[in-house]
Formats: sequence, structure tokens, C-alpha cells
Amino acid sequence: MAKGIFITFEGPEGAGKTTVIKEVYNRLQQQGKYSVLTREPGGIRIAEKIRTIILDNDHEEMDGRTEALLYAAARRQHLTEKVVPALEDGAIVLCDRFVDSSLAYQGYARGLGIDEVLSINEFAIDGLMPDHTIYFDISPEAGLARIAASGEREQNRLDNETLQFHKDVAEGYRLVQKMFPKRIQPIDAGGSVEEVTETVWKTVASFIS
Amino acid sequence: MAKGIFITFEGPEGAGKTTVIKEVYNRLQQQGKYSVLTREPGGIRIAEKIRTIILDNDHEEMDGRTEALLYAAARRQHLTEKVVPALEDGAIVLCDRFVDSSLAYQGYARGLGIDEVLSINEFAIDGLMPDHTIYFDISPEAGLARIAASGEREQNRLDNETLQFHKDVAEGYRLVQKMFPKRIQPIDAGGSVEEVTETVWKTVASFIS
Repeated sequence: MAKGIFITFEGPEGAGKTTVIKEVYNRLQQQGKYSVLTREPGGIRIAEKIRTIILDNDHEEMDGRTEALLYAAARRQHLTEKVVPALEDGAIVLCDRFVDSSLAYQGYARGLGIDEVLSINEFAIDGLMPDHTIYFDISPEAGLARIAASGEREQNRLDNETLQFHKDVAEGYRLVQKMFPKRIQPIDAGGSVEEVTETVWKTVASFIS
Repeated sequence: MAKGIFITFEGPEGAGKTTVIKEVYNRLQQQGKYSVLTREPGGIRIAEKIRTIILDNDHEEMDGRTEALLYAAARRQHLTEKVVPALEDGAIVLCDRFVDSSLAYQGYARGLGIDEVLSINEFAIDGLMPDHTIYFDISPEAGLARIAASGEREQNRLDNETLQFHKDVAEGYRLVQKMFPKRIQPIDAGGSVEEVTETVWKTVASFIS
């Protein structure tokens, strides 16, 4: 059914994903490759509304399972409205975070269980796992230091977490990589933006050649 | 853990559930039984916000799986904030619609699969299935005729469905009853409000005696 290539990008906070993916996308465009860069909720109005509920700083009573179900719901809508049509159109779809984020954050770090969170996400994606996933490997400390140094991002509810939580996320990602060793390709994200971009570019190029 | 009794009420549109349950609740109160009457989203602000997204007439692009995940999310939040505390407090909790509605509506009538929708709901409820469920058995035609005659309810997105959809819901409920024959007790909802109230009252009384 899908004729395109579905590539997702994962990693802890401050790994530099967003900057690097944008550069990779620009190079694909320059080469005339039909590609789509997106991230949940991706401008899909239903997914945006769901996201607003998730990220509201005021929602301290939000249960972890509620949050995981809301992420899965927003993911579903973004997938059907944006990702699937692009793939059917033959695009290379680059998606900043996808199922593995939920497995690492909600499944492991929040203690809901990776298998349990995978099960609701399997319902959400209905078989459409990414063809490839690039994991930005960086220590939680280095990632958090980058966020603090940049001062760019607005704080949201998820940033109000401790270093321990970010360490748990990294451990969650390690476990998820073990579950999907063929799909998930780790890359060293500890270098400069230029270095990481080169590594990611070569990896993406190997997927689409 | 839970010391109370969790009773849910199910049935197609226009089965008279809401009116009858309210009367049963009043009788429990008159007898001095500690009881709580609720329905999703139950005044829980996060669940209310989720419900607003689901029921927005304008959201014609809403995918069926997105809808099912949103119902499960609202269910989870209502359960943890309202039902579980009441049960831990020893209450008889009467809940107007619960998991079985999702199985019949989304799982069967919308064709998502009863088992698949059960799986996301098992994640949402985390083991807290109702102790008892009373099913208001009425033909879809009779139910729809009652809705039309009453003229009471505002139309929402879900009312804009065909008779065939309501027949599918009834068939879905029949299948769900077969899956949970011990928990789900069907009652004849075809009679007058007074008759149905008597039947439901006797059934509830048998649960709590």
C-alpha cells in the first residue's frame, strides 16, 4: 500500500534532533527528492487540540495512562491525515518522534510498562510501524545542558521533570532498541551540529538509495 | 482494594437508562445507602475537555481509532478521579455507560474490532472492570422512536447516524454479552419507565444485599 519511506527520529531532550532533521530535509529538497518533514501533532487540528490538553501546565491531576492514551490518539489522527497520504503519494516522510517516544517516556520512565504502551500504540498505528528509526544517542546530562544553554524553548509541563526522569527515559530507549534492533539505528549525537548532521545524512541516504 | 460496588448501565440510544438510573439512585439515597451516580466525563475537567473534542459536530475528519482512544482516555481520567476514590470509600457507584459502550459502538458498529477496542480499554481501566452491568434490552427502532418522541436531547455528532448503525450497536451489545455472561445482566427495557425502574431496582437490590 505505502510506496514511500517512513523514517522516524528519536532521542532524549536536547539531542539536537529538530535542528538536524530540518537540515537533512533541506538537503533532500535540494536533491529534488519528494519528502515531507513532520512531527506530531503536525498542524492536524484534532491532534493539536489533544496536544493542548496534554501539555497544559495546569493539568497536574493528569493520570499517566490518560496521557499515554491521548498521545496515541493524537498520533493516530496525525498518521491518517498527514503521514499515510504522503506515503501513498511516494514521499520520504521524516517524523520527529513517534511510537518509541511513548514507549520510553510513558512506558518506561513513567512506569506504565513498555509492552502495555506498545499495545495501545499498535491499535493507534494499525500496522504502520516506521521503516527506519534513527536514535540520537546522547547522555541525559549533556542533553539537559544543551536545553539550558540554548534558552530557546518555552517550558512546558514535561520539562518540569528531574534529571532522574531524563535518565529513566534514556534507559527506556535502550530497552526499546533491544526490542527493535533491525528498525532502530543509533547514531552518536554528542558531537557538533555539523558532525551529527553528516552522520544522519549518510544514514538517511543509505535508507533511500 | 475497592470496598464498594461498581455497577454500570448499558444499552442503545433511547433505552431510558438515564431516567431509570436516577430513580434507582434516589431510592438508594432514601434508604441511606452511600451511593454515587455518575457518567463519563462526570465533571472531571480533563475528561470534559476530551469529550468536547469527540462530540464536536465539526470534526468530520475524526478517525474511528482516534475516537476510541479519546473515549478510553476520558474513561481513565474519570475512573481515577471519581470512581476509584468513591469505591475505596465504600460507595455503591452507578455509572451510566462504561467499557461495553466502546466495545459495541466503536468495536463492532464502527468495525474496529471488539477485541482491539477491549485491549485499549483494558489499558485504561487497569483491571477495574465493573462488578455488575445491567443491559437495557430494547430494539433499535423502539429506542430511536423514544428519542424522536422526547425531543429532549440536543443533537450531537453521534446522533447523526443511520438506523443501520443503531442496529449494528445492538448486535455489538449481543456479542459483548456473550463475552461477559456472568457480569452482564440483561433486563427488558421495552415497558414503561415505572416497569423498567422496578426491574432495575430489584436487580440492583440483589447485587447489594
